[in-house]
Amino acid sequence: MEHKDMKQKTKNIFHQEQTKRIYIKGKIHDVSVGMKEIQLQNGQKFITYDTLGPYGDADFKHDIKQGLPKVKCEWRKKNKEFHTQLWYAKNGIITPQMEYVAIRESQGIENTITPEFVREEIAAGRATLPANRMHPEAEPMIIGRNFLVKINANIGNSALGSSISEEVEKAMWSAKWGADTIMDLSTGANIHETREAIIRNCPTPIGTVPIYQALEKVNGNVEDLTWEIFRETLIEQCEQGVDYFTIHAGILKKHIELAKKRTTGIVSRGGSILAKWMSARNMENFTYENFDEICNILKQYDVAISLGDGLRPGCIDDANDQAQFGELETLGILAARAQALDVQVIIEGPGHVPMNKIKENMELQQKLCNNAPFYTLGPLVTDCGAGYDHITAAIGGAMIGWFGTAMLCYVTTKEHLALPNRDDVREGVVTFKIAAHAADIAKGHPAAIARDLAMSQARYDFRWKDQFNLSFDPERAKMFHVEMIKDSGADFCAMCGPNFCAMKITKSID
Amino acid sequence: MEHKDMKQKTKNIFHQEQTKRIYIKGKIHDVSVGMKEIQLQNGQKFITYDTLGPYGDADFKHDIKQGLPKVKCEWRKKNKEFHTQLWYAKNGIITPQMEYVAIRESQGIENTITPEFVREEIAAGRATLPANRMHPEAEPMIIGRNFLVKINANIGNSALGSSISEEVEKAMWSAKWGADTIMDLSTGANIHETREAIIRNCPTPIGTVPIYQALEKVNGNVEDLTWEIFRETLIEQCEQGVDYFTIHAGILKKHIELAKKRTTGIVSRGGSILAKWMSARNMENFTYENFDEICNILKQYDVAISLGDGLRPGCIDDANDQAQFGELETLGILAARAQALDVQVIIEGPGHVPMNKIKENMELQQKLCNNAPFYTLGPLVTDCGAGYDHITAAIGGAMIGWFGTAMLCYVTTKEHLALPNRDDVREGVVTFKIAAHAADIAKGHPAAIARDLAMSQARYDFRWKDQFNLSFDPERAKMFHVEMIKDSGADFCAMCGPNFCAMKITKSID
Repeated sequence: MEHKDMKQKTKNIFHQEQTKRIYIKGKIHDVSVGMKEIQLQNGQKFITYDTLGPYGDADFKHDIKQGLPKVKCEWRKKNKEFHTQLWYAKNGIITPQMEYVAIRESQGIENTITPEFVREEIAAGRATLPANRMHPEAEPMIIGRNFLVKINANIGNSALGSSISEEVEKAMWSAKWGADTIMDLSTGANIHETREAIIRNCPTPIGTVPIYQALEKVNGNVEDLTWEIFRETLIEQCEQGVDYFTIHAGILKKHIELAKKRTTGIVSRGGSILAKWMSARNMENFTYENFDEICNILKQYDVAISLGDGLRPGCIDDANDQAQFGELETLGILAARAQALDVQVIIEGPGHVPMNKIKENMELQQKLCNNAPFYTLGPLVTDCGAGYDHITAAIGGAMIGWFGTAMLCYVTTKEHLALPNRDDVREGVVTFKIAAHAADIAKGHPAAIARDLAMSQARYDFRWKDQFNLSFDPERAKMFHVEMIKDSGADFCAMCGPNFCAMKITKSID
Repeated sequence: MEHKDMKQKTKNIFHQEQTKRIYIKGKIHDVSVGMKEIQLQNGQKFITYDTLGPYGDADFKHDIKQGLPKVKCEWRKKNKEFHTQLWYAKNGIITPQMEYVAIRESQGIENTITPEFVREEIAAGRATLPANRMHPEAEPMIIGRNFLVKINANIGNSALGSSISEEVEKAMWSAKWGADTIMDLSTGANIHETREAIIRNCPTPIGTVPIYQALEKVNGNVEDLTWEIFRETLIEQCEQGVDYFTIHAGILKKHIELAKKRTTGIVSRGGSILAKWMSARNMENFTYENFDEICNILKQYDVAISLGDGLRPGCIDDANDQAQFGELETLGILAARAQALDVQVIIEGPGHVPMNKIKENMELQQKLCNNAPFYTLGPLVTDCGAGYDHITAAIGGAMIGWFGTAMLCYVTTKEHLALPNRDDVREGVVTFKIAAHAADIAKGHPAAIARDLAMSQARYDFRWKDQFNLSFDPERAKMFHVEMIKDSGADFCAMCGPNFCAMKITKSID
């Protein structure tokens, strides 16, 4: 029964008028990159980045049990000896994945991003291409300050709610609205099975926080956690196809006292678990102590490490404090160690930060972490946004994206209050897509600027359908417009009415 | 029937748990300033700025026909000869209105804002206290970069929708959610009557764009507009009690050619009307030509002039162009002329501006307009936000507020698409309240910082009711939380569940 329902829903939710998925072929490798082509009312075509994967194909038949087809990438077959993208990049080799992302990032504007540029950015550690060899369903994408700003959507159950099918639907829904990666943060029941269903049905890289499952294995007793259980969990998830792990290896015993002075203490779940373990055992963080072994496991799969900020500030009063920046310093040291072992790195960042303290975060991260990609949660620019924290986080996210953050983790309207449902995921993803796009505009990305120009030309021409399709949530834009005006050919909208449209009046000036 | 309905609704929509309206007395004058007092669960009290007016009094009986009571302000009786707040300020006199706003701005933290400081800011033209003597229902408030960032909510009908009672409800709704001023931008039917009902029932200053009504008087034929009709409209609205007028006196014949080069031309309704008139008549803008007479009318009532940016950019591609900055130069000259005539001034600003071009707007405005208060519409940081333009505008608004903009005009989810309804007004007002608050935080305003701290302490203590009441939309925050957890005493929420709450784990660390 559930199966049939899902098929039905898939058919409905991925349909978008005047839009189709096209494929652009590689010139070096046999790759075929899916893009979204919007057929404009003036006869032009507009090509944009597409995160939908095979769901965007008109004739795609989805079977949740079977999962998605593998992305065509002959590399996997050719190379018996496995190396990471970072190894290839360092050795001057352009992989199919690198060419794939170069095509994706160029968005139909040729030569803006070359495969060689992608290789250089990865080799320098400024960009990460998360691609676990056990996750062939994922379309290659890249995270780095010299590429489009990416967004991540967190999904996953909690002890208080959700089922496997709901979580798979949230994953598909995230991809539909534009999430570039998805983190499964499940902490409730059936963690392994939930993740399996998500990975097999998701066209984007998947991230997790393995300590959640490790803790489940010891029945929630933090003191019972061991390196061995954590290690076993890492391997289990590597085998399953997770593309990047958040590991809070930078929070050390010496930081705990600093965090105790804070207004809201430790607000990272992983950070608080490790702090409690260190305190109870009077031992150093086992993910820090075994960091090289972690890297050696990850590089066998090319799983990237996302160095978690266990001490990110949970309120404005704690922003940019000694605990936060002390941990960041450790993250910089670990980043260099991982990269030396050919493991790709991402650095996680805050959190709650007032606007006047955002730039310092970015500058310090770049300095301490040798320009490794920064991946922030917001930042939220005030603590008082309950019910609207997608907005407090989009303000900070857009700013830090402009300053150079490579990926923004979305925040939903339910942050601090409850577990988001499917509709909250949609609103959160679209909000962050807009924040990331605004950052791309401010950075001068040609494809982003072209989209705004196409939108504004459509607006001035009263091409309503094009305005809907060029926006980040065509369905909502259309619904708002047609609510009051049924005629999609009208040269005005209900906001100003037919006689007070400034653009219409302007056009009538001789 | 309508009457009775409205009373019923009033009773419901203004109720907030654990919150009451208190009054703080003046020390110089016989003024009594309404503030919101939140009774926290830990026994403390938190005092915040309150825009609700008498609607916040538990025993207030509202009669829409009778309107609101007059704000207690003996000044009006004492002074037979009428002068503007600017005249008094220049002459070293602290008015009751000045003391009133000093108390309001201090928010219970004594001596942060003194009446003398208010006087100095007004005298220097850096702040405006809009207070038409014919609008005694309005509670005095101040607009200036050295005060709390204010927000304006646009309401008003269009030819395609809304009634008088709906518009009065939107006005009351705006005040409930925190709008500091309200602009009635009606362009549909019954402009005079709609405005009358709004002014008599609204506790905040009211702004209008008088050219809309002038155009209605000539049946929408732009060419038939005359200075005389406009002048008559100004007097009519001054008499009615409008507190500030948007007048697009800075758009001149020489600017029209510059605007023709643009991607989206002129997107200000007032600007496009005047451009069309100038072009059709081959004459200079009549509001520019008669500017001194306009000022002489306004100062008889102390109506402030909000110099409209008829050439604000309507898309990213037109931002910071010659047309926009050419007009801004003219606005600076007009601002000085108005202030010399004792008329208080506000300068309106963009519009669509990418993040990297926002600061230039603020700096140029301050330079060209001698620090007169800036009042912006957003700015929207991308053109592609259809359906989510409250967010694209909140991003730019928070930033420019931090840089020094004194008041932000809200933008709703319906911008570019349709006329907002009551719920859209709520979402727009709360969104901008948050953006303004984030700007206050970044500027280091003590009262704003105190609120975030109180919120975070409540969060760390799991005082859920306090978190709801300290947020900007207590009803929504509460709804999200109780949706999944009925127990408001729980030391966790449904997002992480009972075993994965980082703050709870942190507290258990020895």
